[in-house]
Amino acid sequence: MQVQPDRFLEDLHKLRSFGASGVGKGVVRPAFSEPDVAARAWLVNRLEAAGLAPHVDPAGNVFGLADGPSILLGSHSDTQPEGGWLDGALGVIAALEVARAAKEAGGPPVSVVNFQDEEGRFGALTGSSIYSGKTTLAEADAFTDVAGVSFGSARSSMAHLAGGVVPHTRFSGFIEMHIEQGSTLDESGEAIGVVTDIVGSRQLQVTLTGQQNHAGTTLMHQRNDAFQALSAFNTALNDRLRNIVTPRTVWTIGRVHLQPNAPSIVPGEVMFDVQWRDVDDDRLARMETLIRDIVGGVADEHGMTAEIVPIKALQPVPMDATLREALCAGAEAQASGKWREMPSGALHDASNMAGLMPSAMVFVPSINGISHDFAEDTNEADLVTGLRVLADAVSRLS
Amino acid sequence: MQVQPDRFLEDLHKLRSFGASGVGKGVVRPAFSEPDVAARAWLVNRLEAAGLAPHVDPAGNVFGLADGPSILLGSHSDTQPEGGWLDGALGVIAALEVARAAKEAGGPPVSVVNFQDEEGRFGALTGSSIYSGKTTLAEADAFTDVAGVSFGSARSSMAHLAGGVVPHTRFSGFIEMHIEQGSTLDESGEAIGVVTDIVGSRQLQVTLTGQQNHAGTTLMHQRNDAFQALSAFNTALNDRLRNIVTPRTVWTIGRVHLQPNAPSIVPGEVMFDVQWRDVDDDRLARMETLIRDIVGGVADEHGMTAEIVPIKALQPVPMDATLREALCAGAEAQASGKWREMPSGALHDASNMAGLMPSAMVFVPSINGISHDFAEDTNEADLVTGLRVLADAVSRLS
Repeated sequence: MQVQPDRFLEDLHKLRSFGASGVGKGVVRPAFSEPDVAARAWLVNRLEAAGLAPHVDPAGNVFGLADGPSILLGSHSDTQPEGGWLDGALGVIAALEVARAAKEAGGPPVSVVNFQDEEGRFGALTGSSIYSGKTTLAEADAFTDVAGVSFGSARSSMAHLAGGVVPHTRFSGFIEMHIEQGSTLDESGEAIGVVTDIVGSRQLQVTLTGQQNHAGTTLMHQRNDAFQALSAFNTALNDRLRNIVTPRTVWTIGRVHLQPNAPSIVPGEVMFDVQWRDVDDDRLARMETLIRDIVGGVADEHGMTAEIVPIKALQPVPMDATLREALCAGAEAQASGKWREMPSGALHDASNMAGLMPSAMVFVPSINGISHDFAEDTNEADLVTGLRVLADAVSRLS
Repeated sequence: MQVQPDRFLEDLHKLRSFGASGVGKGVVRPAFSEPDVAARAWLVNRLEAAGLAPHVDPAGNVFGLADGPSILLGSHSDTQPEGGWLDGALGVIAALEVARAAKEAGGPPVSVVNFQDEEGRFGALTGSSIYSGKTTLAEADAFTDVAGVSFGSARSSMAHLAGGVVPHTRFSGFIEMHIEQGSTLDESGEAIGVVTDIVGSRQLQVTLTGQQNHAGTTLMHQRNDAFQALSAFNTALNDRLRNIVTPRTVWTIGRVHLQPNAPSIVPGEVMFDVQWRDVDDDRLARMETLIRDIVGGVADEHGMTAEIVPIKALQPVPMDATLREALCAGAEAQASGKWREMPSGALHDASNMAGLMPSAMVFVPSINGISHDFAEDTNEADLVTGLRVLADAVSRLS
C-alpha cells in the first residue's frame, strides 16, 4: 500500500478545526462537547468516503469497518479541557489514512476506531472500558463530569447515530499510534518509540494527624507539625526508593492539603497523595510496602496518627510480541537507527484493548515533552514517519 | 489592698456568658459582634460600680478611669471566631478586681482598659494600634473582615457610647495579665511567668516556579517539581538553622499552595509562607539572610525561578525593667519558687503600649498549652495566684 502524507496531514488539520482554541494549535474538544460530536460526524463521512462501513456504538465510539475480519487501528479524538491538536487525534487520522491506502491497494483489510472519552471527562478511558467489558454501559451512564452532567445524558447527543456493539471477533489485533507525551524521543533525537509495556500505577492517599497549635507560643520540641511530617516522609521516600527503582520508575506527590493552612498556625493535619508507576508489578508492590513502612515510621517519630487509603492499583500491561515485532521491523525500515523500544508512562486505550485481543502501540516525539496543553506539537516529518511505520507494520502482519 | 478571689471569678464567669458557645467553656465573641458589644456595655456598668469613671473611646476601647494619674491595667475581651473564656478576658477582669480592691483600700489609683479587636477581625491589635497612634482611626475604618464588613461601619454599633480619646499622660505605665497560650508553665508546673520580651516576627511569602508535567511520562531527572523544591527547602532550613537558633526560637511553614494540586500532575508551582519569631532582632535578620540564601540555592538546584515577598517584620519589644522587677517580686511573694521569667511568643496589646509608656506582662499557665480553642482553660487556683501577683506588683509600684 502507498500512504499519502499530504492527504493524512490535511485530514489532521481539518480535525483540529473542530474546537480549535487558545494559542498555537490548541484544541478544546472534550467528550460529547459540540465540537467533539461534530468531529465524530465528520469522521463518519471520511470513513465512508474511504470505503469503510461507518458505525457508532452506544458508548459513542466511532468505527470504520473493513469487510470481514481485519486488524483494528485507532485511538481517540476527544481532548482535555485544554488540549493539543495531536494527542489521540493523530492515531485516529493515521488509522484512517492506512485503512484508506490499504483499501486503494486492494488489501490488507484495515478497520478504524475512535474511542470516546479517553481523557476522562466522565471516567477514565470510558469508551474503551465499555467496549472491552471492564465497565458496563449502565455503570458508565452514572459517571458524572465536574459540572454534574452524566455520561448517560451526554451520550444521548449521539444517540441518533448509534447502532449496536461491534463484535470483538471481527478484529485480529489493535495498534494505537500516539504522541509520546514525554521528552525521551525529543531529547534523543529519535523519531519512533515502539511500546514494550504500558506502565502500571498505584496511588495511596495518606492523612497524617498531629496537633494544631499557635506558631508563636509552641516551641519546636513541643510540636506535632503535619507539614514537617510530610517533608520528612518525602525525604525518606526519595532516599529509600533509590535501592528499588529503575531510571524509568516515577513517583509523585502532586496534591497536598494542609489544615488549617494558615501562616501563623502550626498545621495539625495533612492529606496528600503518593502515586507511582512502573512496568513491573512486583516493583510496584515493593514500593507500596516501603511507602507504608515510611508513613508508619514518620507518624511514630512525629507523634501523629496515620490513615492510608488505596486510591488505585493498575497492573502493567505488556504489549503483544508479534505486533511489537512488526512495528520494530517497520521502524527499522522507515527510520533506521532513529527509533527505540520504550514503555509508556501514560495510560492509553490499548491498556483496555490488550484484555480483548493482541495489542500494541507506536509513539512519535512530543516537542519538549509537552502534552495536555495548547503548546503540544510534533514536527510534521515525524508525524509522517509514524504513519509510514504504522502502514509498514500492517503490511508485514498481513 | 485586699483582692477578693470570689468576686473576681464571679465576674470572669459572668463575662463568659456573653457569647458562651461550643463545648466546655468555649466563647464566640469577635470584636463588635452582638455579644462583644453587650459585654462591653456590662463592663461599663461594672467599672462604674467599682467607683471608676467609665469611658469608651472612638475605637471601641473601654476604659475605667481612676481620679488623676494612675497605672493602667487591662487586656481585651474580644475573642477569635472560636475562642476560649480566658485569653484576654482574664486580664480585663483581673484589672477590674485590682482597681476595685485598690479603690476600697483608698489607693493606689488604678485604671482599667479593655482594648478592641486584639484578635484581628479587622486588623491586628486594632484597638491598641489606634490608641498608641500606630494606626489612625481613618486608616482603621477602611479595614475589612473576611465578610467585607469595615471597621468603620462595625464601630458605629458602639458610637452612642463613645467619647473622645483618653490622654496617654494620665497613665504612668501599663501591665497586661494574660494566659501563656503555650505549654511552658503547664509542663514545668509553675504558676506565673513574668514576660521579659514580646518576640519579634518576620514572614516571607515564597513562590517557586518550575514546570508542570505529566506524572507518568516525565522521568524523575526531567522534572522541575515544585513540591520537591519545597521539601528540599524545608530540609535545608531545619538543618542550617541549628547553628543560629536558641531553644525558644520558632519557625513555621503553615501555609502551602501547590499548582495545580492534582495527584497525576507534577506540580509546576508552589507558594508558601515561612514565619519565624525570636526575642533578638539581629537573630531574626540572620535567619532572613539564611532563608533567602536557601531559597536561591534550591531554585538553582531544581531549575526554578523564585520570588520572595516580605509579608511582615515586627521588632521584638522588651518589657520595662521597673515593672518587671515589681512583677518578679510579686511572683516570688505569692508563688515562691513556682514562677519564671520568659518571653512571650505571641503578640499582645502590650507590644503597642510599650511605645507609649513603660509596659509589662504577666502570664498564668494554659492547660496543655491550648488557646484560641473552646478547650482553652487554666486552673482557678492559678488564675487567683495571677490576680494576687498583679495586685502585689501594683502595691510595690505605688
